[in-house]
Amino acid sequence: MNQNVINIESKFACFKDYWSPRVIAELNDYQFKLVKAKGKFVWHTHQETDEAFIVIDGTLKIEFRDRSVNLNPGEMFVVRKGVEHRPIAQDECKIMILEPKNVINTGDSGGELTASNDIWV
Amino acid sequence: MNQNVINIESKFACFKDYWSPRVIAELNDYQFKLVKAKGKFVWHTHQETDEAFIVIDGTLKIEFRDRSVNLNPGEMFVVRKGVEHRPIAQDECKIMILEPKNVINTGDSGGELTASNDIWV
Repeated sequence: MNQNVINIESKFACFKDYWSPRVIAELNDYQFKLVKAKGKFVWHTHQETDEAFIVIDGTLKIEFRDRSVNLNPGEMFVVRKGVEHRPIAQDECKIMILEPKNVINTGDSGGELTASNDIWV
Repeated sequence: MNQNVINIESKFACFKDYWSPRVIAELNDYQFKLVKAKGKFVWHTHQETDEAFIVIDGTLKIEFRDRSVNLNPGEMFVVRKGVEHRPIAQDECKIMILEPKNVINTGDSGGELTASNDIWV
């Protein structure tokens, strides 16, 4: 439970691994998480919740089955619950995610990119 | 219900009034709101929810009864529910707030700075 000022860039400097969310803050039963993205993530769906992506640095593509969107720094997108999606970053991209506690990064897909949950930085 | 890419800076360009939150996105029953701040807000408390402040541009001071914090661009802070606080911006400051829908900006204090709720931009 962080009750100090949180500097987002400083928090990104504390870890290097890709697709491994780090929690930086909680708001009620939600968490702000930082992710370093590079390459293709897995197609997955969160059946129980929306998921917000805010790009801090770099470019994030989010593919859907019928379209895709590109997010640049200062841009955000909310993936609605139940909508299958796949994040892709051609080059390293820094993202802030907001979603409820206990959401698994790979949703209902699992696999080797499934990260430990609730790791704070 | 915005299902396009949301450019935060472009949204800030759509309004000028201070202390008047504009909704830019919803995540489940939460809302992302943009606020242009200048001057002193009122002391107030949200008894029912935490409130996250993310500074996009400028400097925001948040006073508490026993201390204060200064937030610069790229910094964030979560005010816990029930904690009395007063935001202050000496110069114009651009803030993104995250909190549940239907939260009133002046909390339990009311007064002339109470803004209309759920105004989208």
